[in-house]
Amino acid sequence: MAQRHRDTAFAQATDPRAEPPVTGCDGTAGDVLAGYLREQATTFLRALTQGEGDGGSGGAPGTPDAAHQLRRSARRIGSALHTYGPLTDTAWSEPLRAELGWLASSLAREYQHSARLARLLSALHRLSSAEVEDEPALVPAQPGPPPPAPGGGPLAVGGARAGALLERQLTLARTRAHSAALQAMGSSRFHAVADAVAVLASEVSLTAAAEAPADQTLTALTERAHARLAEAAGALPLARAGQPYNGDTLRAALAADLPAERQDAPWHRVRILLRLSRYAREVFPYDDGEPETRPASLARVLEQHREAAEAAEAVTAAARTPRIAPATAYALGVLHADQRQEVEQARFAFVHLWMRA
Amino acid sequence: MAQRHRDTAFAQATDPRAEPPVTGCDGTAGDVLAGYLREQATTFLRALTQGEGDGGSGGAPGTPDAAHQLRRSARRIGSALHTYGPLTDTAWSEPLRAELGWLASSLAREYQHSARLARLLSALHRLSSAEVEDEPALVPAQPGPPPPAPGGGPLAVGGARAGALLERQLTLARTRAHSAALQAMGSSRFHAVADAVAVLASEVSLTAAAEAPADQTLTALTERAHARLAEAAGALPLARAGQPYNGDTLRAALAADLPAERQDAPWHRVRILLRLSRYAREVFPYDDGEPETRPASLARVLEQHREAAEAAEAVTAAARTPRIAPATAYALGVLHADQRQEVEQARFAFVHLWMRA
Repeated sequence: MAQRHRDTAFAQATDPRAEPPVTGCDGTAGDVLAGYLREQATTFLRALTQGEGDGGSGGAPGTPDAAHQLRRSARRIGSALHTYGPLTDTAWSEPLRAELGWLASSLAREYQHSARLARLLSALHRLSSAEVEDEPALVPAQPGPPPPAPGGGPLAVGGARAGALLERQLTLARTRAHSAALQAMGSSRFHAVADAVAVLASEVSLTAAAEAPADQTLTALTERAHARLAEAAGALPLARAGQPYNGDTLRAALAADLPAERQDAPWHRVRILLRLSRYAREVFPYDDGEPETRPASLARVLEQHREAAEAAEAVTAAARTPRIAPATAYALGVLHADQRQEVEQARFAFVHLWMRA
Repeated sequence: MAQRHRDTAFAQATDPRAEPPVTGCDGTAGDVLAGYLREQATTFLRALTQGEGDGGSGGAPGTPDAAHQLRRSARRIGSALHTYGPLTDTAWSEPLRAELGWLASSLAREYQHSARLARLLSALHRLSSAEVEDEPALVPAQPGPPPPAPGGGPLAVGGARAGALLERQLTLARTRAHSAALQAMGSSRFHAVADAVAVLASEVSLTAAAEAPADQTLTALTERAHARLAEAAGALPLARAGQPYNGDTLRAALAADLPAERQDAPWHRVRILLRLSRYAREVFPYDDGEPETRPASLARVLEQHREAAEAAEAVTAAARTPRIAPATAYALGVLHADQRQEVEQARFAFVHLWMRA
């Protein structure tokens, strides 16, 4: 029955004869928000159908594209429900937001392990190969296993062995994440989220505040999202991070009691707030003087920051494997420092993009 | 007899009643060069006497200060003989220059091992300690052994063990260098150099070219030294090195067939040519528009470049020690990458100083 309900909602939402979604600043705040949510819910349901059509079992997304689209829409819906919370019935929207977060992160994990492995093998390739390429610094090299190291002392085999160890560990993690995602997609919990999104495609529970004109209410709520981002970014050590080669990201790399997570956390928080601010721009675009491409550029460098930080952690975890050879451990140490350096580079790039405003 | 000859020369050279050395642009080119060489030779002989007075055995420099001064003067004399070669009898100056180079590097080795150990222990301290200091990036932290790592996984002991290993290896190397320096200072080879410098304090073998007016001949030879530096610096990958976080210095860090020395060599060559150019400014100072403090700043960053590169090599050598623990090897890998990063930082600083001209 839930499935039929979803199919009906999808058919209605994608019917070309249906009312066009309200966008822009006309109408009430509720109209604009509901229009956006409807659009995202439709995309979500289309990705779900696509996944099922590909022969996925029990509603699991069959293709990486479908999974990506599901994640993308789930994040946007959750984000809009958060930023424009006062316009919706929170007894309905808050639990939905939490479930959408669960769904998005369940689907993300497999992809993240893949991306991490590709990043680390690409870095090992760069650290092990001879030629100097003239590529821009933030674009990663083509991933691939590191070339066989020629003879030359006991350290020469370290890179290849470290690559093999990481490949083993991260492939296992990816396989587990894949199984977990499949299991999640077959669960009644998942079906409940999908049904809630299907309802969203046809009707959104709005409050009285949603009756106000769009340009007043939405401007205020959108600006609040931008302000939260600006406040958190302003609290970062921007002057320090904007100075190249400050060495902060590697500081305490060998200290057991102060993991890198502590110094990375404020940056991760800014990444989340930037996402909320960017998606708010989609719901209610208005000219506040922000250069059009800057939010996406900022998001890219903070994504690099997160990926490099998590890759560095995976390297440390691999170095804790019992009975590895010293040459492997040495290569992992070099690789860890290399990734922490990319964390520093991403912070540097963020500061210079951020200050340009 | 050689000793008596040196003492006499020293007494003459330091006699206040003796003619004042010719400096500046008056007189012949030979006068100016001979004046500079006499001055440096006197400093050399004074340091030698000071070393002997401190109870050094067989003419060995008893204090680090005396050894530093001997090295300093030996380099300046050798450099002047090289840059102004056409003004001196090369049959006499070329062998002397080679011997002064041998002496300077014999004396430098002990100091270099000490400095390397201090640099690496300071870096390990930074990598192992918790607090973030707001120090300028190019000023190294106070050296000292890394603090004991608190419990927290098998990697926690790596920093302390790596520090102990480096301390053992570099202290041994320093002790050997000290013995070698003492032996060198007691050798007949050393006495021959000292005698030649003593002769230099009273007379310099000049050619007919030295009879020309100073401002013509010396300007041309000094400019040639500056031009050689400019040419070698211009051939460096300046655009690339001026881009922060380019990652070049760590590239191929795990490749056995392409040691870092190959990419470092052009920078080391520029360091040598900068030294020749700087000392030429001492022999014959004239205003060519070069800001007064820039050559010294450039020399400092290239010295950092050399020290960091050599420290990184020492770390790799330590990682080749048989039967070290994986945690030690991991810490050495992180430390190696950290020092290569300082190599990159020094190149970045060089480019921005160099381009400022």
